[in-house]
Amino acid sequence: MSEHSLLARLPATLGPPSAGCRVGIGDDAAWLDGELVWTVDTLIEGVHALPSRSTLEDMAFRATMTSASDLAAMGAAPLYALAAVTLPNERAFEAIRRGQEQALARLGAPIVGGNLTRGGELSITTTWLGRATRPLLRSGARVGDSVYLAGNLGLAAAGLEALLTSIDVPTACVQAHVRPIARLEDGLRAVALGATSAIDVSDGLVADAGHVARASGVSLVLDARALLATGGEALLLASRALSRDPLELALSGGDDYALLLTGPDALGDEFARVGVVEPGAPGVVVLRDGRPVETRGGHDHLG
Amino acid sequence: MSEHSLLARLPATLGPPSAGCRVGIGDDAAWLDGELVWTVDTLIEGVHALPSRSTLEDMAFRATMTSASDLAAMGAAPLYALAAVTLPNERAFEAIRRGQEQALARLGAPIVGGNLTRGGELSITTTWLGRATRPLLRSGARVGDSVYLAGNLGLAAAGLEALLTSIDVPTACVQAHVRPIARLEDGLRAVALGATSAIDVSDGLVADAGHVARASGVSLVLDARALLATGGEALLLASRALSRDPLELALSGGDDYALLLTGPDALGDEFARVGVVEPGAPGVVVLRDGRPVETRGGHDHLG
Repeated sequence: MSEHSLLARLPATLGPPSAGCRVGIGDDAAWLDGELVWTVDTLIEGVHALPSRSTLEDMAFRATMTSASDLAAMGAAPLYALAAVTLPNERAFEAIRRGQEQALARLGAPIVGGNLTRGGELSITTTWLGRATRPLLRSGARVGDSVYLAGNLGLAAAGLEALLTSIDVPTACVQAHVRPIARLEDGLRAVALGATSAIDVSDGLVADAGHVARASGVSLVLDARALLATGGEALLLASRALSRDPLELALSGGDDYALLLTGPDALGDEFARVGVVEPGAPGVVVLRDGRPVETRGGHDHLG
Repeated sequence: MSEHSLLARLPATLGPPSAGCRVGIGDDAAWLDGELVWTVDTLIEGVHALPSRSTLEDMAFRATMTSASDLAAMGAAPLYALAAVTLPNERAFEAIRRGQEQALARLGAPIVGGNLTRGGELSITTTWLGRATRPLLRSGARVGDSVYLAGNLGLAAAGLEALLTSIDVPTACVQAHVRPIARLEDGLRAVALGATSAIDVSDGLVADAGHVARASGVSLVLDARALLATGGEALLLASRALSRDPLELALSGGDDYALLLTGPDALGDEFARVGVVEPGAPGVVVLRDGRPVETRGGHDHLG
């Protein structure tokens, strides 16, 4: 099942029209009247978190953070969260609370309510309200903008593979997978510097860049060397240990929660410049030494 | 596992304090700065909905409505919803969408975003934002108020039992279980008439009245005859068909989504008067012909 193909069937809102909703289904978060943005995300034990390799505390931290990452991708600051937790038994309750509190302390915003349900599958659904003076949409990239990256690519994918294979990689990789950090300050800084669009890299760089390209009706031409560099030494070491192509990890590894941004040159003061926005059929082209790179993996859109 | 005993361990908010949050964990919904109220609810197939007895369309309708019922219990009007859906496969997607749209049409407000995840257990988590000029809290009941009920008691429990046993009962009972309606207009009317507290009856009347009694530090003295009357002819017919005590169905049957209100006499123009608020140890006393009724069922608080 592809989430994107199912969601593509939906209109911007379901049910009666609402004058107050500026952006609905299809962006990182909904943009409501005024400056409110609103998002929800679900993590399921065994699907999004490995029960035997990371703790429930990690899972709850991750659930709270990855949902907040959608606010970062809107250039929003977090206000409040609600958590809906499904538990097979009482065992997990305190560990989940601890993981949530650790994430909340980093995010500087509280959980103000929620729901607790008994069910067969442990899951955590976190919904965040945030405030954005100028929400960054996927549709805002313009020809002539540069493309920037806040954060690192490939580390989380390397960390996950290391956990699955018990191969030793730099701690930063395992940390990137187990305890991702929402880049909220980067999102706010991007707004201040005039960014035109943003998305958080959760599905993998090429897939997420494709969402921006399609929504904006532009082509993103990305530089393989610059993308690779965002992973730094840790990515090179990990890819060697795992016998993987580091570029493949950087391009298709998901769950990095880096921010992919477009905008004017001013963004280059803060973020790594990784490409340019060009006219042409909406899509993503990754160039290495001036030639398109063949990338593997299940991406919908690879120019 | 008792949701209430676990939630009782939690403070009003988790994580950093927030000046903007007026009411956090422990009421029907959180009350945020200004007039926003916010709530979330999860329905799981096989736990809260019977896969073989009601359709996925019913389940989605119900999930959208029961979450909105928390807004009714705050005296709020619905603004927007987000839906986080976990699906084992694509099969359910369109049925869920139809059920949601039917509920949204009745509620007059849209779903503006959400999340779609693959998982082993079909679940729908709906979060609603609403607006209340004066939120009705569980803690507002005052000695001297009367107690009122908007809606019917016992029908949903009778409907559920009828579905499980294939015994014939009035359609209204099955309908009350399968297609509950959030009493949003009643909640708004109660605010206008000066109501002091409200809760929606989801756990069962005595249990939910207990929540109000504890939060307000008062005793609720309820009249069995008046409570029974809210179920009308349908409750009497159903209880006879099911060989059940109608009062037991009315007192402990959950999922009615009636509103239990407290406030001044003016509420009597619109709602059934079912009791009075008295001083004394917080609790609920149900009187029949002037004597306390013995009620069965797992209620926390029965005076």
